Amino acid sequence: MFWLEMFGIFACSISGTVLAKHKNFDVFGCILVAMIAAISGPTARDIILDRYPLFWMVNMNYLLIITISSVGFQMFCNPKARHVDGLLKLFDGLALAIFTLIGIQVAQEMGANIPICILLGVLNILFGGVIRDMLCNEIPLVLQREIYVTAAIIGGVLYFALEGMGVTSWIKESCTLMTIFVIRMLAVRYDWHFPDIGLMKKHSL
Amino acid sequence: MFWLEMFGIFACSISGTVLAKHKNFDVFGCILVAMIAAISGPTARDIILDRYPLFWMVNMNYLLIITISSVGFQMFCNPKARHVDGLLKLFDGLALAIFTLIGIQVAQEMGANIPICILLGVLNILFGGVIRDMLCNEIPLVLQREIYVTAAIIGGVLYFALEGMGVTSWIKESCTLMTIFVIRMLAVRYDWHFPDIGLMKKHSL
Amino acid sequence: MFWLEMFGIFACSISGTVLAKHKNFDVFGCILVAMIAAISGPTARDIILDRYPLFWMVNMNYLLIITISSVGFQMFCNPKARHVDGLLKLFDGLALAIFTLIGIQVAQEMGANIPICILLGVLNILFGGVIRDMLCNEIPLVLQREIYVTAAIIGGVLYFALEGMGVTSWIKESCTLMTIFVIRMLAVRYDWHFPDIGLMKKHSL
Repeated sequence: MFWLEMFGIFACSISGTVLAKHKNFDVFGCILVAMIAAISGPTARDIILDRYPLFWMVNMNYLLIITISSVGFQMFCNPKARHVDGLLKLFDGLALAIFTLIGIQVAQEMGANIPICILLGVLNILFGGVIRDMLCNEIPLVLQREIYVTAAIIGGVLYFALEGMGVTSWIKESCTLMTIFVIRMLAVRYDWHFPDIGLMKKHSL
Repeated sequence: MFWLEMFGIFACSISGTVLAKHKNFDVFGCILVAMIAAISGPTARDIILDRYPLFWMVNMNYLLIITISSVGFQMFCNPKARHVDGLLKLFDGLALAIFTLIGIQVAQEMGANIPICILLGVLNILFGGVIRDMLCNEIPLVLQREIYVTAAIIGGVLYFALEGMGVTSWIKESCTLMTIFVIRMLAVRYDWHFPDIGLMKKHSL
Repeated sequence: MFWLEMFGIFACSISGTVLAKHKNFDVFGCILVAMIAAISGPTARDIILDRYPLFWMVNMNYLLIITISSVGFQMFCNPKARHVDGLLKLFDGLALAIFTLIGIQVAQEMGANIPICILLGVLNILFGGVIRDMLCNEIPLVLQREIYVTAAIIGGVLYFALEGMGVTSWIKESCTLMTIFVIRMLAVRYDWHFPDIGLMKKHSL
């Protein structure tokens, strides 16, 4: 679990750095956007759950990995290179799966009920991305017509379904991670969108 | 009071859904914007007052009513219909009155003094609307030249004036609600703006 | 220290009012933006540190000085006057120095370690400015290619270097304030930018 979490933090840090570079932020601006992208979701989750001290204040590894990965990316990578975009989508899908699972588990530990756990799982990954996009003055992509929140919610429901069936912990976790990641990757690959549920397009209210 | 609060939540949820629909967010994106519009104001109020656990984590009715109203609106209403805009303004005025009153009362229960109570009353309704507009990449309308914050502040001052005069609780509450709602509706109807207080327009500093 | 803090609050309040005026917000909208610019940084710092009750709820001087300075500026100053821009830059540099120092000292009192103290010092001044710019739908200038965060970090490192050397408290504080302020003013005067650290501009990843 620890390595998964670190990888999720790393992926969010890179996504923040790439967007900040595109907006011409300077070195420390990029590091700050990377930190915001990576830790503001879990921070919002912890503040909502009244869970203190915050995880990144106790364990310095989080801030260290964000700083190193952001500086490293800025030094050695060209954000306009061909491979970056595909790699980012892959990282993003992994971060979505990892953060959702961690959010659900933390909320469960704090005694929250099932809908709140799923909501905090979604918040755990979404909040950082939304703030990152707002900082860069863009409409948050994750809220638009992409299977992003949807994948997280399906994974969350599956998690509690498997728990209800008494499945072993590691199988439950792997299934949730895999399901979220595969749905997200398929959505990106085949450009899936969630259908509009409006029934009254042709009529006025 | 419970029904008033539920109605306020419902009104904010619809306003969030309408704006998110205009921005082409998908079903879950709209639900999330509705949740943010409806509960982030009271959540900010509770975090500032250190009042835990948060109200929507204890009582699931809040999230339920937001989800149902957002999905229902998306299914059965056309946000571009003629009636929607007028209805929204009405709902918005009611939500302004209800949330301001609730914010004031919660802050008062927590032992805050009068200016803080009024500020938290304003924050209670404003924060959700501001975050909703920021998410959709628009300048928050409520901060611009409309009698919105002004109505809430007048209502708050009236509330404490009536309290100082020893008026019965339900009369005090009804007067506050009515005053805020009527001022806001008149401002919308007659396009009132707060006058500019600058005295030095023609001169340099 | 108290007067320094009040001056920092005053400077942030003026900067919020000027930006809000440019965006045509009304009187109360300007006051709210001024409050957000001045107290949301320290509020975020206190929420992250779980330090309750919040400073502006205990001591009403903060909100009072913000309201008076914002209303006074709106009444007596013309934000388009020639002198305002230079004055703002000066105030902004002073606020940067003061808020960074206060943020570091508060975090230190709460027992945070050195990197967290510096991060909270930066957050203390940055958060208000970022939210202010986001409210007004602009890309936060402070994150772009200006020596702003950089000056705060240099000041923070100097603070702990002097502390490690056992320097008296008031010398340590004055040196930190002066260093941040001078670096920022020189950066504004000579249009310094932090160099790009990318090594791979010409190559793909």
